[in-house]
Amino acid sequence: MSKLLAVGTVAFDAIETPFGKTDKILGGSGTYVSLAASQFGVETGVVSVVGGDFPQSYLDMMNAKGIDTSGIEIIKDGKTFFWSGKYHNDMNSRDTLITELNVLEHFKPVVPQKFKDAAIVMLGNLHPLTQASVLDQMETAPKLVVLDTMNFWMDIALDDLHAVLKRVDVITINDEEARQLSGEYSLVNAAKKIHEMGPKYVVIKKGEHGALLFNKGKMFFAPALPLAEVYDPTGAGDTFAGGFCGYLAKTEDISFENMKNAIIYGSNLASFCVEKFGSQRMEELTEAEVKNRLHDFKELTQFDIELS
Amino acid sequence: MSKLLAVGTVAFDAIETPFGKTDKILGGSGTYVSLAASQFGVETGVVSVVGGDFPQSYLDMMNAKGIDTSGIEIIKDGKTFFWSGKYHNDMNSRDTLITELNVLEHFKPVVPQKFKDAAIVMLGNLHPLTQASVLDQMETAPKLVVLDTMNFWMDIALDDLHAVLKRVDVITINDEEARQLSGEYSLVNAAKKIHEMGPKYVVIKKGEHGALLFNKGKMFFAPALPLAEVYDPTGAGDTFAGGFCGYLAKTEDISFENMKNAIIYGSNLASFCVEKFGSQRMEELTEAEVKNRLHDFKELTQFDIELS
Repeated sequence: MSKLLAVGTVAFDAIETPFGKTDKILGGSGTYVSLAASQFGVETGVVSVVGGDFPQSYLDMMNAKGIDTSGIEIIKDGKTFFWSGKYHNDMNSRDTLITELNVLEHFKPVVPQKFKDAAIVMLGNLHPLTQASVLDQMETAPKLVVLDTMNFWMDIALDDLHAVLKRVDVITINDEEARQLSGEYSLVNAAKKIHEMGPKYVVIKKGEHGALLFNKGKMFFAPALPLAEVYDPTGAGDTFAGGFCGYLAKTEDISFENMKNAIIYGSNLASFCVEKFGSQRMEELTEAEVKNRLHDFKELTQFDIELS
Repeated sequence: MSKLLAVGTVAFDAIETPFGKTDKILGGSGTYVSLAASQFGVETGVVSVVGGDFPQSYLDMMNAKGIDTSGIEIIKDGKTFFWSGKYHNDMNSRDTLITELNVLEHFKPVVPQKFKDAAIVMLGNLHPLTQASVLDQMETAPKLVVLDTMNFWMDIALDDLHAVLKRVDVITINDEEARQLSGEYSLVNAAKKIHEMGPKYVVIKKGEHGALLFNKGKMFFAPALPLAEVYDPTGAGDTFAGGFCGYLAKTEDISFENMKNAIIYGSNLASFCVEKFGSQRMEELTEAEVKNRLHDFKELTQFDIELS
């Protein structure tokens, strides 16, 4: 069992989908990553920042799940990062209605002493310089650094992104972003180009179309579980990443073969995340449910053709 | 080893993709289905129609592969069906430039006597009444009837389509068409509605995003093999269907578990089809290549998580 350090946002989200609308609820990449990782009982520390308006009850909930929140700085006279968005009918695209950076604007992550030797570091979607500053604080070289990013940083901080990518083992990125970063349309070619930028492992997230793992010529694919209804896709990508990291931290095996399992666990957890609004489903999720769904994933993907 | 009867078009295609442009080359659903099925050495008969302009060399090539072309009517003073299309850069969408129905306009399929007892019947994308007329000619009830269709027939002949669907075991359809036919956005719900129209098995083709097989609550998914370059997607869907039917005809096992294997073989063959223009790759494809790629599909999809 390795320690996992997750850097990301802890935020308020207000979400509208064809199924309904929420007020400000708990959100943020750090939240989803750590909730997913908590399924594996690994020691997870979150580094983030919130304002004085952030309810203690959310921190209590995370602590009750074994998540270490001592790295979440609370700025008493500041306001928590707030995002509001509305999903279109196809659930694949959304409009951002409101983004209030608030305390995130001047966020300087501080890694708690007890996580400076974390074996696995998950750098959530933040400015590449902020991501790099976390790696600078590590006292022991992590066994695995995983980075998530988005097109926004490619547009405004590409050089910084390239610099931090040289220090990263795994990048998780969606298909359109992989195309933008590499300038290649084919995801096979895109992964090859991104390998050359640093990451030995490239995970391309395709939302409802699953996720691909590339490692220098090797490929693995995990489908998303087809669901009757997707209530809210918010946090699914971060839940996927948290499941991936959490499983690797638990098993202490970062081989390609075990990363296949980690990708399946990521898809498994993400399939729950979208079943309710916000982080609600992840908060109530049990180990038995996850195991049960693993059977569904096996049924969905495993076949038995004799090869001669 | 069962007999396979494939009804569909045998045609000329002229194709433009970002990788190049062809003159009139061999195309048509009957062509692709039978070329795919020929990989399994099953006795395949094609029912179709061509004009006097159709080269004997194409028929010779099909015969050399063991495909029975006695059901391809040749109308000496008619012209062969011609389709021309241009693919966009993403290869997922295309514009039809020319459609000349020619001899297809008054096509009345005639099933050769020796295929009136075929165990598996593949009804390629044609008017639903034409598809039904083939079933009317069968002297022995087929073990499995597979039907392919498209949005065009939903627009102009929906009642006829519903009528023939009642006589069908498997429908293959793409995702947008499944949504149109069912009025459901979620593919899980769409499959449920389509089950109620007749087919016990619903295969939803998602192009580069793979294919789903539904059978009353059970699901299986086969990804498309991620490729560095897709040269020409023409015929991939029909090749998929031909691989599916050919494998089932060869193994004489139409259980859900064996259909999983058939779906994988369909994806396997389709991954070759797109590697060259038209049917070229399928004409030269060897058994060893197909076996080899089956290893790639296993690597891509199989994982080994212990379930307790």
